[in-house]
Amino acid sequence: MIERPYLVFLGDVPDRLAAKTAYGIVDWRRDWCIGQLRLPGCNADTGLPDMGIAEAAANGARSLVIGAVNPGGTLPEHWVTTVVEAIEAGMNVASGLHVRLGSIPAIREAAERKGATLHDTRHADRQFATGKGTKRPGKRLLTVGTDCSVGKKYAALAIDQELLARGASSEFCATGQTGVMIAGRGVAIDAVIADFISGAAEWISPAADPGHWQIVEGQGSLFHPSFAGVSLGLLHGAQPDAFVVCHEPTRTKMRNVETPIATIDAVIEETVRLGRLTNPDIRAAGICINTSALDEAAARKCLDEAAERYGLPAADPIRTGVAPIVEHLLANF
Amino acid sequence: MIERPYLVFLGDVPDRLAAKTAYGIVDWRRDWCIGQLRLPGCNADTGLPDMGIAEAAANGARSLVIGAVNPGGTLPEHWVTTVVEAIEAGMNVASGLHVRLGSIPAIREAAERKGATLHDTRHADRQFATGKGTKRPGKRLLTVGTDCSVGKKYAALAIDQELLARGASSEFCATGQTGVMIAGRGVAIDAVIADFISGAAEWISPAADPGHWQIVEGQGSLFHPSFAGVSLGLLHGAQPDAFVVCHEPTRTKMRNVETPIATIDAVIEETVRLGRLTNPDIRAAGICINTSALDEAAARKCLDEAAERYGLPAADPIRTGVAPIVEHLLANF
Repeated sequence: MIERPYLVFLGDVPDRLAAKTAYGIVDWRRDWCIGQLRLPGCNADTGLPDMGIAEAAANGARSLVIGAVNPGGTLPEHWVTTVVEAIEAGMNVASGLHVRLGSIPAIREAAERKGATLHDTRHADRQFATGKGTKRPGKRLLTVGTDCSVGKKYAALAIDQELLARGASSEFCATGQTGVMIAGRGVAIDAVIADFISGAAEWISPAADPGHWQIVEGQGSLFHPSFAGVSLGLLHGAQPDAFVVCHEPTRTKMRNVETPIATIDAVIEETVRLGRLTNPDIRAAGICINTSALDEAAARKCLDEAAERYGLPAADPIRTGVAPIVEHLLANF
Repeated sequence: MIERPYLVFLGDVPDRLAAKTAYGIVDWRRDWCIGQLRLPGCNADTGLPDMGIAEAAANGARSLVIGAVNPGGTLPEHWVTTVVEAIEAGMNVASGLHVRLGSIPAIREAAERKGATLHDTRHADRQFATGKGTKRPGKRLLTVGTDCSVGKKYAALAIDQELLARGASSEFCATGQTGVMIAGRGVAIDAVIADFISGAAEWISPAADPGHWQIVEGQGSLFHPSFAGVSLGLLHGAQPDAFVVCHEPTRTKMRNVETPIATIDAVIEETVRLGRLTNPDIRAAGICINTSALDEAAARKCLDEAAERYGLPAADPIRTGVAPIVEHLLANF
């Protein structure tokens, strides 16, 4: 559990893309953030009030959250000073970088001295049991994809938010390093030892009240040759009642490989086929399409065609919101 | 690479089952072993000549291989002495226990002083790339299962041995801790970070001569709710041309879970469906049935029925040998 409120650290990143995590946190958890800390030269701006360490601490900031990435996943020398200052001021620190915070001597020493907690959300150091596959109470939805990076996290966050807005009981269950910062807890499932993928997914979405929804962030794709094992273990462990297929309509190949992108049809068929092992009632509940590369008319057409073809609500979490999917969920699950 | 010859260490295990790894090594790599070392009270005997550290070292032993398990996967205090003595005598050490050899101070210090290599075959500390999914030259066979622990390792070893006996070019590719000791190299694929399962499988079975066979040890089952993700990542990374389904006919439930054991039909269908992602030509090449719980007549009947039903050679690697499967491989792949 990453303590709140957050002070979001942007470093001196060259552009908005390098601060994607910070924007994600501010998009979904604006209320948890009391400010952003930018170093000279920073070219990103989340719109949060700019704030130094002392001011943030005085305002009650509990965690410095590193919302920026650096080529290679390292922590630049001149960012370390800021992290140490935050610890000195009484904050914990969360990072989604490859490098472990505790591997940097100045940070480790400061954390030990001040009793600060260092959260490395890209790593999964907790011990898990192997998955059991037994059905547990509560309702679960998993976002799945025709590829990696097609909007599974945003779809899950949007569905959770819309459920809550309608008074339903819901929580977002994070399975990736950025998701963990947005949720304040969770596990980067692709960082777990392979034997424990489904066990970690069970831990992330434990037994709950029968009417409560756990909206589980998907990872990878059953059709991605690099990551399908992660996607399958997550599917088996999450044992979803409902899944939403996420898709990017202009992509032709899977990310970083030569494999063609999977079709929505294939993902629905395979998710049902394989998901039945731990939940015989698994069903598709909607399609989320990232239409950001399309103009308004093309986006509308794309969503209408998908809704027609699959007989399911289709939405773009950013452009249209996911109200039709959540209405369908509440009426049919 | 674990240096040979091996001195196989049995400790003081209470029975044969607790020394399963040692028996596996002796069954398949008798020529690599110069002796066994047993402590007083040991109730297992692989048939190797009994030998102390000094005698083994004088005879050229290069590695002490811990062929015994202990409840909890720990190294008992009174085994540590033997391990340290072996290091002092110039040997490396290999262990498939959960505990890392280097985490035991006396062993770590001796290894550092003598420059010995410590192999923890249950762990996978090497860095892998993510899987690429591109087709590479060479022929590959993967053993797959209707459950865990149905004989996938023995089937792979028997097929490799039979191919070699017929003059074919073949190697056994180990993916589990015992397999790694039998092969002298390999990776415990279930110990790899989830993101790298298929990448590790690609590393284990790299590009090879077009006529060369890599016989890849399977893990888990696509239908086991704890481990299917590992099985799928291994399938995608190994990109087998041929697969052999391994089965234990008297089992009704999967190991350690409540899921019914999968059928051979389902495993064939699902392996082809999912394996096509990285090898469109994947085909079943045989059935291996562990008939140890059946009498001779029942075993014969079971194998005949399977061969008839699937139109594939069926064999028990221990009872009948795998000649029909290898003949089929050589004629049809």
